[in-house]
Amino acid sequence: MTPSGTTSGGAAGPAGQPAWELLLPAVGAPARRRGRALQEALREAVRSGRLAAGTRLPSTRELAADLGVSRGLVTEAYEQLTAEGYLRGERGAGTWVRGAARGGGGAGAGGASGVVGAVGAGGGVGATGGVGAGRAGGAGRGLGAGRAGGGAGTGGGVGVPGVRVDFRPGTPDLSLFPRSAWAAAQRSVLARLPHRALGYPDPRGLPELRGALAGLLARRRGVVADPERLVVCSGVAQASTLLGFVLRARGLRTVGVEDPGSPEHGRLFASTGMETVWLPLDGEGLRPGPLAASGVRAVVVTPSHQFPSGIAWSAERRAALLDWARAVGGHVLEDDYDGDFRYDRAPVGALQGLDPERVVYAGSVSKSLAPGLRLGWMLVPEELLAEVVERKRTMDLGNPVLDQAVLAEFVTRGGYDRQLRRCQRAYRERRDALLAALAEHLPGTGVSGIAAGLHVIARVPARFGPPERFLARAAEAGVALRPLEEYGTARPEDGDVRLVIGYAHLSPSTVAEGIGLLAGAVGGRV
Amino acid sequence: MTPSGTTSGGAAGPAGQPAWELLLPAVGAPARRRGRALQEALREAVRSGRLAAGTRLPSTRELAADLGVSRGLVTEAYEQLTAEGYLRGERGAGTWVRGAARGGGGAGAGGASGVVGAVGAGGGVGATGGVGAGRAGGAGRGLGAGRAGGGAGTGGGVGVPGVRVDFRPGTPDLSLFPRSAWAAAQRSVLARLPHRALGYPDPRGLPELRGALAGLLARRRGVVADPERLVVCSGVAQASTLLGFVLRARGLRTVGVEDPGSPEHGRLFASTGMETVWLPLDGEGLRPGPLAASGVRAVVVTPSHQFPSGIAWSAERRAALLDWARAVGGHVLEDDYDGDFRYDRAPVGALQGLDPERVVYAGSVSKSLAPGLRLGWMLVPEELLAEVVERKRTMDLGNPVLDQAVLAEFVTRGGYDRQLRRCQRAYRERRDALLAALAEHLPGTGVSGIAAGLHVIARVPARFGPPERFLARAAEAGVALRPLEEYGTARPEDGDVRLVIGYAHLSPSTVAEGIGLLAGAVGGRV
Repeated sequence: MTPSGTTSGGAAGPAGQPAWELLLPAVGAPARRRGRALQEALREAVRSGRLAAGTRLPSTRELAADLGVSRGLVTEAYEQLTAEGYLRGERGAGTWVRGAARGGGGAGAGGASGVVGAVGAGGGVGATGGVGAGRAGGAGRGLGAGRAGGGAGTGGGVGVPGVRVDFRPGTPDLSLFPRSAWAAAQRSVLARLPHRALGYPDPRGLPELRGALAGLLARRRGVVADPERLVVCSGVAQASTLLGFVLRARGLRTVGVEDPGSPEHGRLFASTGMETVWLPLDGEGLRPGPLAASGVRAVVVTPSHQFPSGIAWSAERRAALLDWARAVGGHVLEDDYDGDFRYDRAPVGALQGLDPERVVYAGSVSKSLAPGLRLGWMLVPEELLAEVVERKRTMDLGNPVLDQAVLAEFVTRGGYDRQLRRCQRAYRERRDALLAALAEHLPGTGVSGIAAGLHVIARVPARFGPPERFLARAAEAGVALRPLEEYGTARPEDGDVRLVIGYAHLSPSTVAEGIGLLAGAVGGRV
Repeated sequence: MTPSGTTSGGAAGPAGQPAWELLLPAVGAPARRRGRALQEALREAVRSGRLAAGTRLPSTRELAADLGVSRGLVTEAYEQLTAEGYLRGERGAGTWVRGAARGGGGAGAGGASGVVGAVGAGGGVGATGGVGAGRAGGAGRGLGAGRAGGGAGTGGGVGVPGVRVDFRPGTPDLSLFPRSAWAAAQRSVLARLPHRALGYPDPRGLPELRGALAGLLARRRGVVADPERLVVCSGVAQASTLLGFVLRARGLRTVGVEDPGSPEHGRLFASTGMETVWLPLDGEGLRPGPLAASGVRAVVVTPSHQFPSGIAWSAERRAALLDWARAVGGHVLEDDYDGDFRYDRAPVGALQGLDPERVVYAGSVSKSLAPGLRLGWMLVPEELLAEVVERKRTMDLGNPVLDQAVLAEFVTRGGYDRQLRRCQRAYRERRDALLAALAEHLPGTGVSGIAAGLHVIARVPARFGPPERFLARAAEAGVALRPLEEYGTARPEDGDVRLVIGYAHLSPSTVAEGIGLLAGAVGGRV
């Protein structure tokens, strides 16, 4: 097999001779992993600059023939990397390397439009009809929303007086926590950990956990995960506060947040002395104009599955955000709060992989294991690293050691992957149950956003409204709901009821029961 | 038994009729607990105001007869409470209630001098001769000292290249961590904890842990421990940062720290925007004049066992500090870093018990279990509570839940008390080994401070010096030492070598070996 001769077509860049054999190791992977291995090899080739920006890729038919794999595998790889922003395509014309930051200066958003495989609003809506109805444009600012908004959390409102079914988002199913496996890992850790590991910790985290997480995140989320740049922290909330303090100490006074978005981001940055600036989203991601005009030099975003709208940012907007960051010397905090859960295809890789020098990547076990563990991670650009670590040190000297060792063991032995598969199955089933119940009981309701995560945006037609009466009747019936307007500044006047519905913590039968109760209260089909 | 008629003598205050029967319940305690029960009852009577400031106590003989207990028990109780600042005495003249903050306005330091039972420098020095030689007056500012100074901590220098015996202070014996008992508590917690407890935590901490700690601290440290005012945090370092941010937000810009003291206090407050002001100590505690002149409105102190000098603050200085705090509307952070370990008598009760509205009390399991657990607590005055809790929330949303539940179980089932007894025995033995080795190998060395804690101050005569050569030779011999001058601003010129020697993490034989090595290097008796 030789390098294809078709690799430097119309958009010939400074590519030299792209060597397609760099993709060959992927072909040696076991059949069931071959697709992912191809994507990883392609991503790495772009990132390292071995596939330079502007390089035209072979057609899917040609590359499949060259590599001796199915054409579907190559098509899927092109689509995935296009969605993530590594490639760009023109329908019917070809696919080019957009280029990640490391691959040189060609990472701009200009040039081709009409992205192949860009994932916008509307995915996974078929089950309810009403496609396209529920975009996240309408919303409004509010308090107490989203994850960790309140303080003393309970498992999805269980035991809250008067609440029979609690659809407020933010909590996973705590009964899925793998108690036996966790207990086994705890035993093993206490049996093997050397005494000295019980001393004052490394504020960056336990080396074995940083190594295990770096491997996990590179594999699952497509990030550039150097264990030396990984800082174990107590979750995305602490990652936000750490970054806020560091940027504030550098003189920044404002941070941009998505509108709609999680008001908690703003509260966390406010605690570090940073004011928040709401930046409008559309169906593709942050709008570049208002971002540039805002004057901020730091933003917090959720590009893989925007909270709460549920869209995945388009490749253009991912690239545009990074262009902006490079142009203003700014930083991006990527809150990958539920990036592991995608039900219709592989999750879109994290933004951080495109420019690890501009993006601080943050995630946690809060949605996959339990928020009560207070265990998360951040990948930090080199130039911010020392400041973030020193801030972490003065904040708490580092995370508890035993918990870190237990998670390391759990990840290394495959328990974490098993847990993600288990959650994935459970949450997909619950999402399906929710969409079916909405279609049955509140016909005409639109559900928007990609098939992912732990919540959906539902837009209930005005005939069941108006919103105030709808929410009041739901509350009377014991159904706890959170309106979308609590998550941003928009206040649409069309009379439709926009809701952020969390389903992950509820069994399918409880989901169905809750929507039935709701329908009974607002005049739907019972 | 009736109230004694001798209770309102010369210094008759606004006492009304003190009723000694309030002490009677203590008499009903089992014989081995009777002494402590009497002290607790007496402390509570002063604190509640039932024994008003200025009240003269019966003589020890009279009260012993009235209560039907041994005179020694009453004498010990008077001495203990005098040391803690609840009572004051004139030798041969009598004992009066000094009064805690809640007991009215009579808590001033004026009046009687010549405190009965005040614990100054010099306790527990007999084993080495050279009594009184090693007061903590000489010291000097430095970095990297004390607990948690460095970052990636190891167990007392184990494995540091070239170091054969590491006497640097700050680490307990990590091999004493009760692995089996901890593992059993972990199993039990995972078996019983309800699912909802795995959700986002209460930022104040798990209610069951706050209750267990409140009981423990009231019993062992004499604090006023309302579970509603107890905030679980990741240790004294985080307590310092939390308080620093809260006070900075109220407009404070400076905090006073003890000189000599732990430079880490200053670094932690510096991270919150507070500058540190060194305040000179003498053999009794902080000197009131420089404190008043400094203009600070917040101080961090270690009154039960001052770090590093090893003194216990006198009752006068405890009272004077609280007077200052009330006069300027200031706050005191009491770092009770090793208050559980006292080898010659019961530990002096915490300062916080005298005025819980002015003192923030902070402690942790770092010296009793393991620093790697990152688990501690603070008792917070009502007027600061909401701000501290909100700051804790934005910093990390609260401590990990499972760890908290395990510690609660451990405390409730008596494991924590057992662990403290175990450490107490081990550390006392090591301290004795150190004093014996110093007396044998470096004769004339004075060891100062009370018989407590995990370190001593040793003053090695100038004939083994000068200090620079002494330290260089020790390092060449593989003996890691920390000079006292790294902990403050003083630079004595007498040629003696002043060291802060940590012994808790070393076996008695290693302690002896290390001092032997040191003697061989500096010309002592080998």
